[in-house]
Amino acid sequence: MMKKRLFTPGPISVPEEVLLEMAKPIIHHRTPEFLEIAQKVVENLKYFFQTKNDVFIIAGSGTAAMEAAVVNVLSPGEKAIVISGGKFGERFVEIVKAYGCIPFVIEPGWGNDVDIAIVEQTLKQNPDIKAVYGTLVETSTATAYNIKGLGKLISDFPETIFVVDGISGLGAVECRTDDWNIDILVSGSQKALSLPPGLSFISVSEKAWRKIASSKLPKYYLDLKKYKKAMEKFDFPFTMAVSLVIGLNKSLEIIKQKGLENLWKIHRKRALATRKAAEAMGLKIFSKSPADAVTAIILPEGIDGEKFCSDLRKEFGMSVAGGQDRLKGKVIRISHFGWQDEFDTISVVAAIEIMLNKYNFRVELGNGVKEAMKVLFGN
Amino acid sequence: MMKKRLFTPGPISVPEEVLLEMAKPIIHHRTPEFLEIAQKVVENLKYFFQTKNDVFIIAGSGTAAMEAAVVNVLSPGEKAIVISGGKFGERFVEIVKAYGCIPFVIEPGWGNDVDIAIVEQTLKQNPDIKAVYGTLVETSTATAYNIKGLGKLISDFPETIFVVDGISGLGAVECRTDDWNIDILVSGSQKALSLPPGLSFISVSEKAWRKIASSKLPKYYLDLKKYKKAMEKFDFPFTMAVSLVIGLNKSLEIIKQKGLENLWKIHRKRALATRKAAEAMGLKIFSKSPADAVTAIILPEGIDGEKFCSDLRKEFGMSVAGGQDRLKGKVIRISHFGWQDEFDTISVVAAIEIMLNKYNFRVELGNGVKEAMKVLFGN
Repeated sequence: MMKKRLFTPGPISVPEEVLLEMAKPIIHHRTPEFLEIAQKVVENLKYFFQTKNDVFIIAGSGTAAMEAAVVNVLSPGEKAIVISGGKFGERFVEIVKAYGCIPFVIEPGWGNDVDIAIVEQTLKQNPDIKAVYGTLVETSTATAYNIKGLGKLISDFPETIFVVDGISGLGAVECRTDDWNIDILVSGSQKALSLPPGLSFISVSEKAWRKIASSKLPKYYLDLKKYKKAMEKFDFPFTMAVSLVIGLNKSLEIIKQKGLENLWKIHRKRALATRKAAEAMGLKIFSKSPADAVTAIILPEGIDGEKFCSDLRKEFGMSVAGGQDRLKGKVIRISHFGWQDEFDTISVVAAIEIMLNKYNFRVELGNGVKEAMKVLFGN
Repeated sequence: MMKKRLFTPGPISVPEEVLLEMAKPIIHHRTPEFLEIAQKVVENLKYFFQTKNDVFIIAGSGTAAMEAAVVNVLSPGEKAIVISGGKFGERFVEIVKAYGCIPFVIEPGWGNDVDIAIVEQTLKQNPDIKAVYGTLVETSTATAYNIKGLGKLISDFPETIFVVDGISGLGAVECRTDDWNIDILVSGSQKALSLPPGLSFISVSEKAWRKIASSKLPKYYLDLKKYKKAMEKFDFPFTMAVSLVIGLNKSLEIIKQKGLENLWKIHRKRALATRKAAEAMGLKIFSKSPADAVTAIILPEGIDGEKFCSDLRKEFGMSVAGGQDRLKGKVIRISHFGWQDEFDTISVVAAIEIMLNKYNFRVELGNGVKEAMKVLFGN
């Protein structure tokens, strides 16, 4: 038996206060008691989303909300830009295709931010593009995108809505739904909210509702009009995951108390500390536009990243993520969000140093930790 | 809300496996189900004590078992040596006095091991000494005593038994009840066993039973003869703390799986790492015979140790202990036992470095951590 520490980019550890809340006896989802909690949760979700738009909770993981952001918006044969810089950008492409719509895929290349001029040009050349799908933080490459810039651009196109996958980023990095003109933002429970997986969230602007009104794709469980109708009474169209929502209530209270701006700062420090530590170990990070939610470190040539991750878990009880797809075996990804603190950052950096030495990549023990400590606690 | 990390020399964090075990519905203490657990627990406690002697569980904290080791052994007016090198040695003196017995107090001085020659001389000059009371690890000074040497000495005195307070040390440092001729060893749940406080344990040798047979001090709840009679059926004379015993069962299983010798080695590494880190910060440790269960670091002149501890708790959620009595405000004490690992040691060292800087005692961030990492993970 050993201590377990999660640094995977979701799920992440759940604070004991939230665990205890979720361990209370189950209540029924159509009781005034539960609907009162739901009302509070939705209000606090609006703070979390930085929006006055509608926000809905779906009992389903982030992909469910991504799918909702397609099937409620488009109609068969309609066109949408998808900015795809990694596995989760690709997921939007797959969903759009699965419903017989036409994706215009803009690929900035893995690890690169999007070139807004290309998006602008594509929009201008194709006035029938109904939506632009973007990603706040691409988990697979640990890359942040200029969502603010994209939102500003797209707001000039009255017939095009802006949809953002904020699953891995929301709460960890700055994101302002209303100020940045994000029409639909989706997120999930198992990232910066530090809840177990199982819930996803979706915000919908007035502009998006107009699009939804005319959408002709088939849908039932993910039909946002059903959610909107139920929400008039702070209710849900289908059985809601009661204990997760009760945990969410606690989690959002904690976040509100800390303040979103403070959270963004904390994540930035943890991310920066990890990057500086990697540098001190002689390693490079993968992304050219690194996100503060998660860091992808390129492993030295010859080290099998899958085995490296597995050894970290077996020897130290520490879970970090490996690479996906073309990065498989080449990087490790360390999340900075959720229920972790500065000493966890120090611990994971220490573990990587030790493991690198075990793999005969010589690193002076403590050099990375020292740099991390300076960022985290120096003046 | 912040993460909490306990480095107090008891209580210490409880592993989740044990917490979950204790969270199961309460069962009655006179059921075959519970007595079966009790039987397993007593067998494994004998391994933990390294003894074939009787071992009993008392629902009460360590002091209850210390008192049992006096009231079952002595008679009014009888003499006993008490080796008192700190607060817990003093406690034996107080208990012996409280029952009208006569303590011969041997004081090695706080932080020093006992001089066995003095004990030998006292025993030879006073053939009517019925017992010698010693301490395995004196928590207040973080000092280890030569229990093996004392046991060897006392075994030559057929009318004198050797009683050891092993509350803070057992499981953390080497201690072999039978091989070392310890007639009565007491311990508690909230130290190396990583349980909540509430249980204490006491082992009794044949030699001690002979003493117990003639003891005339008043007792009821702590009457070991009652415990012995009940134990014939693996039962208890009074209502037992059911959930704690169920947790103990799990905790002992974990310890048995790891192996005591391994545990001793692990504690030695954590203690050594902490001492080396303190040295790298320019600090000294208090004890001249430092224990591997807990380390007392002398704070720089001018730093208020009480405030320092309180700030560590408030700013980093880290609990270490301050000094007691004459060491109040002058030292901090960091435990190495129980549910903590190498990364916890690194974390507490990092926190002390950071806090020292906040107190304007300049330490280069990471220097202590580096030394600790070398001890913990270097070759």
